[in-house]
Amino acid sequence: MDLTEMGRAAVAAKYEVQKMTAEDKNASLKAVAEGLLRDKAAILAANAQDVERAERGGMHPGMVDRLRLTDARMEAMAEGLLQICGLPDPLGEVLEHFTRPNGLEIEKRRVPLGVIGIIYESRPNVTADAFGLCFKAGNACILKGGSDAIDSNTAITESIRRSLTESGSCEDAIQLITDTDRETTSRFMKLNEYVDVLIPRGGAGLIRAVVENSTVPVIETGTGNCHIYVDEFADMEKVIPIILNAKTQRIGVCNACESLVIHEKIREKIMPALAEALQQANVKIKGDERTLLCVPGAVPAAQEDFGKEYLDYILSVKTVDSLDEAIAHINRYNTGHSDSILTENAENAERFLNEVDSACVYVNASTRFTDGFEFGFGAEIGISTQKLHARGPMGLKELTTYKYAIRGNGQIRP
Amino acid sequence: MDLTEMGRAAVAAKYEVQKMTAEDKNASLKAVAEGLLRDKAAILAANAQDVERAERGGMHPGMVDRLRLTDARMEAMAEGLLQICGLPDPLGEVLEHFTRPNGLEIEKRRVPLGVIGIIYESRPNVTADAFGLCFKAGNACILKGGSDAIDSNTAITESIRRSLTESGSCEDAIQLITDTDRETTSRFMKLNEYVDVLIPRGGAGLIRAVVENSTVPVIETGTGNCHIYVDEFADMEKVIPIILNAKTQRIGVCNACESLVIHEKIREKIMPALAEALQQANVKIKGDERTLLCVPGAVPAAQEDFGKEYLDYILSVKTVDSLDEAIAHINRYNTGHSDSILTENAENAERFLNEVDSACVYVNASTRFTDGFEFGFGAEIGISTQKLHARGPMGLKELTTYKYAIRGNGQIRP
Repeated sequence: MDLTEMGRAAVAAKYEVQKMTAEDKNASLKAVAEGLLRDKAAILAANAQDVERAERGGMHPGMVDRLRLTDARMEAMAEGLLQICGLPDPLGEVLEHFTRPNGLEIEKRRVPLGVIGIIYESRPNVTADAFGLCFKAGNACILKGGSDAIDSNTAITESIRRSLTESGSCEDAIQLITDTDRETTSRFMKLNEYVDVLIPRGGAGLIRAVVENSTVPVIETGTGNCHIYVDEFADMEKVIPIILNAKTQRIGVCNACESLVIHEKIREKIMPALAEALQQANVKIKGDERTLLCVPGAVPAAQEDFGKEYLDYILSVKTVDSLDEAIAHINRYNTGHSDSILTENAENAERFLNEVDSACVYVNASTRFTDGFEFGFGAEIGISTQKLHARGPMGLKELTTYKYAIRGNGQIRP
Repeated sequence: MDLTEMGRAAVAAKYEVQKMTAEDKNASLKAVAEGLLRDKAAILAANAQDVERAERGGMHPGMVDRLRLTDARMEAMAEGLLQICGLPDPLGEVLEHFTRPNGLEIEKRRVPLGVIGIIYESRPNVTADAFGLCFKAGNACILKGGSDAIDSNTAITESIRRSLTESGSCEDAIQLITDTDRETTSRFMKLNEYVDVLIPRGGAGLIRAVVENSTVPVIETGTGNCHIYVDEFADMEKVIPIILNAKTQRIGVCNACESLVIHEKIREKIMPALAEALQQANVKIKGDERTLLCVPGAVPAAQEDFGKEYLDYILSVKTVDSLDEAIAHINRYNTGHSDSILTENAENAERFLNEVDSACVYVNASTRFTDGFEFGFGAEIGISTQKLHARGPMGLKELTTYKYAIRGNGQIRP
C-alpha cells in the first residue's frame, strides 16, 4: 500500500479513535486479545516462516529466540492487551482552567497525539503491545517492524484489524508497512503531513538512523549508559547488593549499570569485596589505574570504555576524588537515562539529584527501576532519553498531548 | 568561534545557570537591561551599519523597518527584560510525588531544558528577548540570527555578556553564532551532543529548513492558516466584529484569520454585510462558487487558496452544508494553530472544540488571542504548531522539562 494512502487512512482513523469512549476502546482491546488467541495457529505458522528464514540466514541464536513466538508468548501478548484495558483512560483530563480579565475561559485539555509512527526491531510482540498503548490513549498507529519478523507482524496485524472491524472499531487504527526497503522507511520518516510523532524502539543504530533521517518529530528512546557512583559516605551494606543487581539482574537492557564511579576515600575499603562479588557473577572489570591497584584480574579501561553501553557482563570503573568530579564525569559520559548515588550524606544526595542531567536520578537504589511498570504506570512504550515532551519511562499519558479550548462571547483583541 | 567549543561552553554554562536562585537570575536580568541602555550608542551605531547595508542591497522598506533599532525600541528591549524579572520562577516545582510499594519515593521535578538553540530572522530585539526567557527558565542559549542583523546582534550579545560577567553570572549563558554561511547553520542543527532543543523563529521557509535539516529535537513554531467558521446558529451581532478583528487588526501575524468557512443556511443572510465590511477594510475576498453568488467583487478561490497563509489583506471563503463538512475542511487545510467557531449552539461548539485538531480552538472569539501575553503567561518565545512537548503559546514553563528524582534505602529489583 502506498504511504500517502496509509497516512490518509491513519488520519481518518485518528478522528474515529479519538471520539471513542473508554468503554468502547476497552471492548475493542478485549476483542483484539481474544482474536489473537483465536488466530494463534495462523500467527505461529507465519512466525515459523520468519524463524526458519532467520536460522537459514545464520542469525545468532539469542536473536532467533527474541523472534520466536510460542503458545506462552501468545498468551502473554493477549494478557498484555487485557492489562491495558484495566488502566485508566488518560483522556478527558482538564490540566488547567483559567478565566482571563476579558472573560475568555481557557481550558487546557489532555488529547491524543493523533497518528503515532513506530519503527521497531525483531520482537513481534511489540506489534500488539504498541498498538494497544497507542489505541488506549486515543491514537491511530502506523507500524514499521523489522524485515526479520515481517510474516509474524503481518499475521498479528491482520488479526488485530479483523477484531477491530468485528468489534465495531476502525481497522485503520493499526496499519503495518510491509515494504522492507530502505526507501520506504526513509519516506515514512518524512511523512509530516500525516504522522504526528515517530517513536523508534530498538538498538542504538536504529535510533540514530531515525533521529538523523526523520523530519517528523521523534521521541528518542533507549540507549542507557547508566552509572552508579559510590560516594565516600556510602553504606557498605547497600553497595554490593545494589551494584550486583544493577549490573547482572538482566544485562541486555537499557537500565542496566554500565559504569561505576568510586570515591577515592572508599576505594580500598570497598573494591576488593565488590570486585570479587562481580567477578563471581562473571562480570569483567575494566578499570582506571587506581582500580587496577586493588582489583586483581581487572583490565585497563580505555577512554572510550566510559562512553560504552556494553549490554554485556562488562563494567567500567573510574576513581574520583570528589563529588564534583563524579558529577562532571557522569554528565560527560552518560546518555541521560539513569544514574544512581550510593551515600548516607543527605547534602551529597541532594546535589547529585540536582546536578546529574538524566531522566532518572537515584539515591541508594538500583538503576533497574527505570521502567514504566516499576514506576506504577502499568505500561511502557519506551524510555525517553531526550528532554522534549517526555523524559524517562513513557506510559499512556506520554502518548497524549494537550489543546487549548477557549470559550468567549464575542471577544476581539483591542 | 568553533561550534564544538561553543557547545562545550554552553553545557558548562547550563550547569551554572541551573544552580542560580531566582533572586540571582533577576539581579542579572536587571543588570543586562541597564547594560543595554548604557551601551545604547554602540548598539545603535552597529544597527545603523546593518540598516545601511540593507538599504544599499535594496531590502523592502517594511523589512528595513523591522531591522531598525531606535531609542524607543531599545527602551522596549530593556523593559521586556525587566518584565521577565517580574515573572515567577518556573523551576523548583514538584509536578508529582508518589511512593511505590517497595518504598521508593519518586519525585517528578520541573528542571531547565539545558541548552536551547534559537534560529531567527531579522528583528534584532529577539536577541535580548530570547536570551531573557531562556535564562529565567534556567537555560543557556546559543543564538543564530539572520545575516541582515549581524552587527546589531553582535553588539547586543556583547553588551549582555558584559553585564552577565559584571553581575557575577556566567557570560556563556548567551552565545551568538556569527558565521553566516549555510554550512555553519547546518552543523548547528546537528549539534545533538550539546544542544537539547532548537526553536526556529521566523517565516515558513526558515521553519521548514530547520525541521528538514535538524537532528536536534525541534519545537516547530509559527505558521498559522487560521480559520473562522460561521455556524448556522451564529449570533449575527458577533460575526462581523470578530471576523474584522481576526483578519485586519494586524495582518502579518500567525494568529490572523486567513480563511472563512460559512454554513450555507446563513450565507445569504451574513455574506453581503460581512463582505462589505471587509472590503471597506481593504480585504480582498477569494471565494468558492456560492460565495461569488452573494459577494460582488469577490474573485474565485483556487483549491490552493484554502491552504494559504496570506499574511495580507486577502481572505479565502468556503461554503459548507454542515458542521461535519466544516470540521473536515478545517482539519484538512489548517496548520494546527488556531481556529474559531461562531455559534450559539452549545452542542456544535463542543463538537468543534473536540474535533478540530489545532493548538487553540475557540468559540465566539477572535483567533488573535493565541499569544503568550493574552493567555496571561507574561511572555512568549513562540507559538508551537506541533504536538510534542508544547502546543500553542509557549512561555517560561514551556522552556523547561522534568526529571525523576528517586530516593531509596537499598532497593534492588527482584
